[in-house]
Amino acid sequence: MDGMGDPEFADIEAAAERIAAHVRRTPLLASAELGAAFGTHVEFKCENLQEGGAFKSRGAINAVFALAADVAARGVATHSSGNHAAALARAAQRRGVPAFIVMPRGAPKVKRAAVEGFGGRVLECEPTLAAREAAAAQLVADTGASFVHPYDHPLVIAGQGTIVLELATTTERPDVILVPVGGGGLLSGTALAARHRWPGTRVIGVEPAGADDAFRSFASGQLQPQGEPRTIADGLRGAMSARTLRLARANADSIVTVAESSIVAAMKLVFDRLKLVVEPSGAVPLAALLERKVSARRVVVVLSGGNVDLESLPWLAPSPGAVEAAPGAPLRR
Amino acid sequence: MDGMGDPEFADIEAAAERIAAHVRRTPLLASAELGAAFGTHVEFKCENLQEGGAFKSRGAINAVFALAADVAARGVATHSSGNHAAALARAAQRRGVPAFIVMPRGAPKVKRAAVEGFGGRVLECEPTLAAREAAAAQLVADTGASFVHPYDHPLVIAGQGTIVLELATTTERPDVILVPVGGGGLLSGTALAARHRWPGTRVIGVEPAGADDAFRSFASGQLQPQGEPRTIADGLRGAMSARTLRLARANADSIVTVAESSIVAAMKLVFDRLKLVVEPSGAVPLAALLERKVSARRVVVVLSGGNVDLESLPWLAPSPGAVEAAPGAPLRR
Repeated sequence: MDGMGDPEFADIEAAAERIAAHVRRTPLLASAELGAAFGTHVEFKCENLQEGGAFKSRGAINAVFALAADVAARGVATHSSGNHAAALARAAQRRGVPAFIVMPRGAPKVKRAAVEGFGGRVLECEPTLAAREAAAAQLVADTGASFVHPYDHPLVIAGQGTIVLELATTTERPDVILVPVGGGGLLSGTALAARHRWPGTRVIGVEPAGADDAFRSFASGQLQPQGEPRTIADGLRGAMSARTLRLARANADSIVTVAESSIVAAMKLVFDRLKLVVEPSGAVPLAALLERKVSARRVVVVLSGGNVDLESLPWLAPSPGAVEAAPGAPLRR
Repeated sequence: MDGMGDPEFADIEAAAERIAAHVRRTPLLASAELGAAFGTHVEFKCENLQEGGAFKSRGAINAVFALAADVAARGVATHSSGNHAAALARAAQRRGVPAFIVMPRGAPKVKRAAVEGFGGRVLECEPTLAAREAAAAQLVADTGASFVHPYDHPLVIAGQGTIVLELATTTERPDVILVPVGGGGLLSGTALAARHRWPGTRVIGVEPAGADDAFRSFASGQLQPQGEPRTIADGLRGAMSARTLRLARANADSIVTVAESSIVAAMKLVFDRLKLVVEPSGAVPLAALLERKVSARRVVVVLSGGNVDLESLPWLAPSPGAVEAAPGAPLRR
């Protein structure tokens, strides 16, 4: 990623054109019921219905299709066991080039199956960050593949920002857009896009309290280490990069944290009232409304993904206390 | 319902105008993945995302808003413990008139809560059909409320038919539209609309084999009794009426039946691959594709509803054999 600058708004506009044929324009669903419960007009951007089941397809497609043909032909690579890995494999498949995915030994079989289902080639490594980075570096040296980081990459960030351009063609300007924060790619892309397309709209990142490096980094202006993330939101355990922190501080309003119990309650609310399957990370922004951490007249909540193990939904967990009620008033229809 | 004739296509067009401000234009989602698996272009009409979580809001709104003001003021009534009851309560609430719902003692608390959440007044009766009908008749005599049958009602049928008019503004003419069949309101409305809007499109009803009165009635041309329905699809346990059978025979192509195991497999497929919450009844049409009972180039599947108990999803059921694999090839991404 040496030599790659920060994305600008024009990069997001270019991304929207580049990815249009390869991703879905996802529905935006209003909920009068949840709006009444929270005392705000609320709409949900359904990136759980995105190709591959997550917004990650936007950034991955943008990065892969921006490569020159001779560079793309050598393939793309990443180290990830999450939605970005599957999204990159899918993007490479659509471009007709190989995708090399370094995954830690013992990664969930369903994640590996998703990558392989899109034709991605999985290389196993030891389950440490150092081993993953070393394996990926070796891979890139051996193959000449282009490394596509899950979030510390200007084209990936620009791709994620296209959500705002879609929103702007389908709804009125909201006062607040809520997005989850892990490494900060979605937050920084969304905030950059909103500052240009919808000045005055506040973009707020929501993060599990058990993995609050972004919250601490945003507040201090210095990258803070993640420590041991303790959250059910498996997509949000990464740490911000210097680039995503810089972009978030320049364009986003704030970062708030939410409790694990609120994340589970929000997830169940999405299943129950919106009739949508959402993964824990995707329910994190709604948890901020449940906790009354955010107040505004019009809110857009980004439901970022829906890839969840249906055999072990967290409200069915046997561990006592894991699924206690979230703060805030109970919901009536 | 004496003196009410059969609905005509013009009634469906009128219904579309009448209900527009009160129901959702639900998304239509294509799935390249499921299309490849089934060898057909397939799109899903997401009535699980409809207001109240089911298509029933269409017919209920149409029936309630068609009433003259003085008649409406006396309220509306039905006997039902399912989606129609909640939809009628919601429709009455929007019109500002009372809704009286006769429910059998012991009906699921969640169903009662849904009705009461929309301001409906619940009257309990003994859990037999005779007791329900007697209680509803008494109620209508006492209050002057208008009885709105869940499906044996021309305005309800016309309301359900509006799905086709929405489809016609958003997609190409499909070869087949698949809908679930219980009492036949959705099937007869859809088939009537399709015959006029999309001549040549076959509308096929799909019914659980364990509650196959519609299948037998359609084949013989004579109303067949339901017997003891044995199916997880709780919305499809009703029996056709003379009116819905007549309309279905005049306008629909056929009715096919599916196994319980296929219904559960289809339901899980919708959660897992489409990221949508669907109730067993709503997954029944997809089960027909899983069982290879239907073959066509372009198919629209109506996901009719999403009201399901999230604490006891059927693939988590402990009973062995209840969740065996459905017929048909396994799915790959």
